Amino acid sequence: MVWQNISLWSSSGGKVVGQVVVVIVLVVPTMVMATVVVRWWRQCWRCWSCGSDSVGGAGATSFLFTEYQYVGIFMIAFAVLIFVFLGSINGFSTSYQQCTYDPTKQCKPALFTAIFSTVSFILGAITSVVSGFLGMKIATYANARTTLEARKGVGKAFIVAFRSGAVMGFLLAANGLLVLYVTVNVFKVYYGDDWEGLFEAITGYGLGGSSMALFGRVGGGIYTKAADVGADLVGKVERNIPEDDPRNPAVIADNVGDIAGMGSDLFGSYAESSCAALVVASISSFGNNHDFTSMMYPLLISSVGILVCLLTTLYATDISEVKTVKEIEPALKNQLIISTALMTIGIALVSWIAVPYSFTIFNFGVQKEVKNWQLFLCVAVGLWSGLIIGFVTEYYTSNAYSPVQDVADSCRTGAATNVIFGLALGYKSVIIPIFPIAISIFVSFSFAAMYGIAVAALGMLSTIATGLAIDAYGPISDNAGGIAEMAGMSHRIRERTDALDAAGNTTAAIGKGFAIGSAALVSLALFGAFVSRAEITTVDVLTPKVFIGLIVGAMLPYWFSAMTMKSVGKAALKMVEEVRRQLNSIPGLMEGTAKPDYATCVKISTDASIKEMIPPGALVMLTPLIVGIFFGVETLSGVLAGSLVSGVQIAISASNTGGAWDNAKKYIEAGASEHARTLGPKGSDPHKAAVIGDTVGDPLKDTSGPSLNILIKLMAVESLVFAPFFATHGGLLFKTF
Amino acid sequence: MVWQNISLWSSSGGKVVGQVVVVIVLVVPTMVMATVVVRWWRQCWRCWSCGSDSVGGAGATSFLFTEYQYVGIFMIAFAVLIFVFLGSINGFSTSYQQCTYDPTKQCKPALFTAIFSTVSFILGAITSVVSGFLGMKIATYANARTTLEARKGVGKAFIVAFRSGAVMGFLLAANGLLVLYVTVNVFKVYYGDDWEGLFEAITGYGLGGSSMALFGRVGGGIYTKAADVGADLVGKVERNIPEDDPRNPAVIADNVGDIAGMGSDLFGSYAESSCAALVVASISSFGNNHDFTSMMYPLLISSVGILVCLLTTLYATDISEVKTVKEIEPALKNQLIISTALMTIGIALVSWIAVPYSFTIFNFGVQKEVKNWQLFLCVAVGLWSGLIIGFVTEYYTSNAYSPVQDVADSCRTGAATNVIFGLALGYKSVIIPIFPIAISIFVSFSFAAMYGIAVAALGMLSTIATGLAIDAYGPISDNAGGIAEMAGMSHRIRERTDALDAAGNTTAAIGKGFAIGSAALVSLALFGAFVSRAEITTVDVLTPKVFIGLIVGAMLPYWFSAMTMKSVGKAALKMVEEVRRQLNSIPGLMEGTAKPDYATCVKISTDASIKEMIPPGALVMLTPLIVGIFFGVETLSGVLAGSLVSGVQIAISASNTGGAWDNAKKYIEAGASEHARTLGPKGSDPHKAAVIGDTVGDPLKDTSGPSLNILIKLMAVESLVFAPFFATHGGLLFKTF
Repeated sequence: MVWQNISLWSSSGGKVVGQVVVVIVLVVPTMVMATVVVRWWRQCWRCWSCGSDSVGGAGATSFLFTEYQYVGIFMIAFAVLIFVFLGSINGFSTSYQQCTYDPTKQCKPALFTAIFSTVSFILGAITSVVSGFLGMKIATYANARTTLEARKGVGKAFIVAFRSGAVMGFLLAANGLLVLYVTVNVFKVYYGDDWEGLFEAITGYGLGGSSMALFGRVGGGIYTKAADVGADLVGKVERNIPEDDPRNPAVIADNVGDIAGMGSDLFGSYAESSCAALVVASISSFGNNHDFTSMMYPLLISSVGILVCLLTTLYATDISEVKTVKEIEPALKNQLIISTALMTIGIALVSWIAVPYSFTIFNFGVQKEVKNWQLFLCVAVGLWSGLIIGFVTEYYTSNAYSPVQDVADSCRTGAATNVIFGLALGYKSVIIPIFPIAISIFVSFSFAAMYGIAVAALGMLSTIATGLAIDAYGPISDNAGGIAEMAGMSHRIRERTDALDAAGNTTAAIGKGFAIGSAALVSLALFGAFVSRAEITTVDVLTPKVFIGLIVGAMLPYWFSAMTMKSVGKAALKMVEEVRRQLNSIPGLMEGTAKPDYATCVKISTDASIKEMIPPGALVMLTPLIVGIFFGVETLSGVLAGSLVSGVQIAISASNTGGAWDNAKKYIEAGASEHARTLGPKGSDPHKAAVIGDTVGDPLKDTSGPSLNILIKLMAVESLVFAPFFATHGGLLFKTF
Repeated sequence: MVWQNISLWSSSGGKVVGQVVVVIVLVVPTMVMATVVVRWWRQCWRCWSCGSDSVGGAGATSFLFTEYQYVGIFMIAFAVLIFVFLGSINGFSTSYQQCTYDPTKQCKPALFTAIFSTVSFILGAITSVVSGFLGMKIATYANARTTLEARKGVGKAFIVAFRSGAVMGFLLAANGLLVLYVTVNVFKVYYGDDWEGLFEAITGYGLGGSSMALFGRVGGGIYTKAADVGADLVGKVERNIPEDDPRNPAVIADNVGDIAGMGSDLFGSYAESSCAALVVASISSFGNNHDFTSMMYPLLISSVGILVCLLTTLYATDISEVKTVKEIEPALKNQLIISTALMTIGIALVSWIAVPYSFTIFNFGVQKEVKNWQLFLCVAVGLWSGLIIGFVTEYYTSNAYSPVQDVADSCRTGAATNVIFGLALGYKSVIIPIFPIAISIFVSFSFAAMYGIAVAALGMLSTIATGLAIDAYGPISDNAGGIAEMAGMSHRIRERTDALDAAGNTTAAIGKGFAIGSAALVSLALFGAFVSRAEITTVDVLTPKVFIGLIVGAMLPYWFSAMTMKSVGKAALKMVEEVRRQLNSIPGLMEGTAKPDYATCVKISTDASIKEMIPPGALVMLTPLIVGIFFGVETLSGVLAGSLVSGVQIAISASNTGGAWDNAKKYIEAGASEHARTLGPKGSDPHKAAVIGDTVGDPLKDTSGPSLNILIKLMAVESLVFAPFFATHGGLLFKTF
């Protein structure tokens, strides 16, 4: 291949304008955001003393700290692994080496890049942990605060829950962006013109963020759902006491959101897609004249995204006003539409100001002329696909539409038909989302090859702050309801929080749709970057090495799901025994005169999640290493493609099945329509069948489903980090035979 | 590419020996078989007058005839489509045209190949229908006969049930092989040296067989499972009357096996893998000196397989003797092991006698030297992989091992944990079978490219007669139990048939494992043949055309499963209403003094299955056409690869989840161990939870799961048939833009 010296944005005007835009866009939202965060945080802070920490918060904090201890050990071990593997590429030599993409140049020694990769891995991991921890803290305060505000009315409670979600969203997006921006700039001081090394080192950031996200999602999912399933099985099914009743010792552990996991997850996607875009950009515009401003286009998109989300959020909290229950869901959905519409304008501006009319990119040896309007289309198609996926998810999981109502109706004939209809709904809900994903891939790839896909992924994630706000809103209002129940507050308050929660369930499903859709694009971009780094030119399904990778890769999401589902099941069984024991042995508990032993339940959940998150974590983290080392990069590329196409489908169907069951149950409980009333009330046979569906759905929608996007992203980013090692030292088995 | 004139077996000695072997191997088993069939058939025939036709048989026959009417219309329409599409390639010209693989030669006009393809499509369809119909007939007689023999003891009943299965197996294998052999020879008269045209025409046979199998599986699955689920929901869950009680009007429709569907399915696999092997052989050994004997190697494998299975079956029915319940399962499993071991010797002999030491094959432009021992290894690895997959399936679905016992144990805490554990078991059971499949692909592809994969698939299917025998044995004993219950026979007889059935459930699961494993290999071989015919040299995942195909293809099994599951659910709801109506409105029905209105239930099942099999059928049949015509062969190859890797996983997990739930229920009911007795007896809470799992599993294991292998095979064979059309006239959308 003949590499030519080109840059993505060659005009020096573009350079200056770009740098100015970056600074403005990075600084302005950071400042504004800081103000907002401080203001809203104070509101939440008031609850520090109102006892929220004893209601779920304590359990959650102790769980997180225990988790971080184990995760910390893993992090250090894996950091050492990264250093050893990447450093050994050139035998730990400190001399310069030939660059891969531009063989005429000398690049920094692999040893130093190994050090920088390790550092950025640790940075990513710490940023992720901090994001997760802050998210959890915000959530636990927000939970109680929302309950208190619910006394004043639905509108007030909504504002608090939503603002808390927004604080989380902004904190996370800004956190990720700032750390990445600073890291790139600091590394640049050492690397100078060695773009290859710089962006190789930066990929560690994505890996760090994502691996923490995996543990957050899996550990948090098992922790919460073991308690949830256990509490429901004994409380609702056997003893007929209400959900979240304080007499049930397991509810305490349930009252911890999936927030830490979710925050880390979307942060991971964000970090990875930025890294993927940067790596692909560096590869696509290799040569001597790399333009630093031009490389910043991906970061520009994200920065504009934060600004846009800020405006959108202000609309919900300060301009429009939610007064009644019915206005909640439209308000949340409007958030998505507004942010997407504004973002489209934002992308257009950025593409027009910072990008020259036409420039050249290189991918897999193909030279491509890209116009700025094409780049705009790449980002826009990703952005709008995200919205479509979100709304399709909503259609299949909201009880305002016929799919969930059909599932509720099938409860008439018992739990079996409910489960059959729910599974069928999940399978069906996969169909439509695949098409926007496929179209995004086709359009963005046709215009700008892998670079197009990377920026399309960023486009989908550009409204992440809004997405996270409405996503976090769900668990916050759910837990607010739990607190109301546990604190023995009046029935009206519980009704209000339930209404908030029903909307939250739907928006949480939208958030999951987003997460999965973006994971597909991010993984593909990372996959593209990996293939480039591993110097493969084709991934031909017709070669046996690739095909066996493909079929094994497609199996991995099943393996992973089997582990996580079984873990929840096993932990729930233990929880059931403990709850039964307490209800039977503690005198006065059922009468409400004695307190249950919450601590033991928290300990069961904590121990189970720590113990059970190791095997699935090992599966995800070790597979790329084993395949790369023993079978080589071709098989590994097959594994990545296989896990991507298969994982996306299971993730969508698992999340939506679970969401639909949950809302079918809520539909019957709420009894808001003629039809719903024929199925209810609580405690009727159809309702009992619906509770069984809901319980089955818990691990599907909150443990295995949402962990799968991390699986596919994480394997891709890990392969990318180790690509240079695999390319030089991998494929031992095939070399031997 | 430079095509050379080579033949697979170049020595004239090989030619003669091969032809002799073919004749011997084809004639001998046919004769022996005919004798056995006549002898055993007479045994079954005695039941013609013993009323079996009124017990399920009538419903089944009327269902099949209604189904065949609709399917007949489809068949004619599709035959016209094949003729028009393939005929139009050269504008319906009757002049000779340049051959694809050997451009120096003239091949027969496309118009005539279109006619022959149409004829072989119709032949395949009719053979499949006949196989299905005969299978059904044998089964309905065998059902009643088995019930009668059960009065004399378990051993007698076992022999009858097993012999009936064997009659079906041999009938089907011999049917398929003979028709194919005769067709090839007759077509050869016209085609002469035009091997390309000959084998293109022959692929229609596979398509015909497979499309009928699809309707058989889907239609039969919906028919049976709608009745089964409906009967269970009202009878067992609401009214607490036993399974298969004659007072329940829906049991009649349940008492029809999945036998027609299964027979057609495995026949389809068989026909397709033979076609795939022939096509790939013709492509791999193109040139002037195609050797007819050499092309017969795939047919030789199948012929030897029939002989081996005959010997194996005789061992079970005439040499060893089953006396007690405990001996049933080992006896059935021994069948598999013996046939596999004998077959290994058989393959070795065939490969040694009919194949020269070394010959050359061509695949995707690569020339490969293949030794006869390598060919032997290709077939053997497929054969043994099938056995491993079978035993893994057994491990996960038999209640003799811990996985199913764990699922049964989880019923303690209710239906929800049962469903969670069952789903997790299904996911987990995917892991191990993927490895033998991957290893088979790798080994056989490395030795003999796509030809290797085709013969590996044939190897896995070579013991099909034994496989079918033990597979058909399951539903036969299940229905025998139903008849015993309906005829009000003594409790002891029902216990015996239940024991037969428990073993049958496991072996049916083994059969499904086989069907899925072989479907994966067959589809891959067909995929390879398609790619060759469509003149694509690489299927590169990194091109957007292929990748969008891959992700959409991976979605198709979900779409298909959603349709079939929902269909069963909907039909079951209707059935529930009808059963409730009858139980409430027919006086004396519950007391057993009045007869239920079976006919209405049969009509509901029949109407539902006819109506509901059209959308999934259309999805499978139209997708390759639409993708090929509008998006072209690259995208279509992506779709095939995607549906293959994703479909195999869902098919395995769905079948095994359903099988495990069924046997977990039986485990509790049988109460054979200390542990099982703590969960029982019938009617206890854990048992009720187990019944719910079993009901959910019905559509998974008998409708959507087993239809998925047909989906992946059928799309591949259809693409192969239309490949020349797509290659010349397809991809309209990409041509336009």
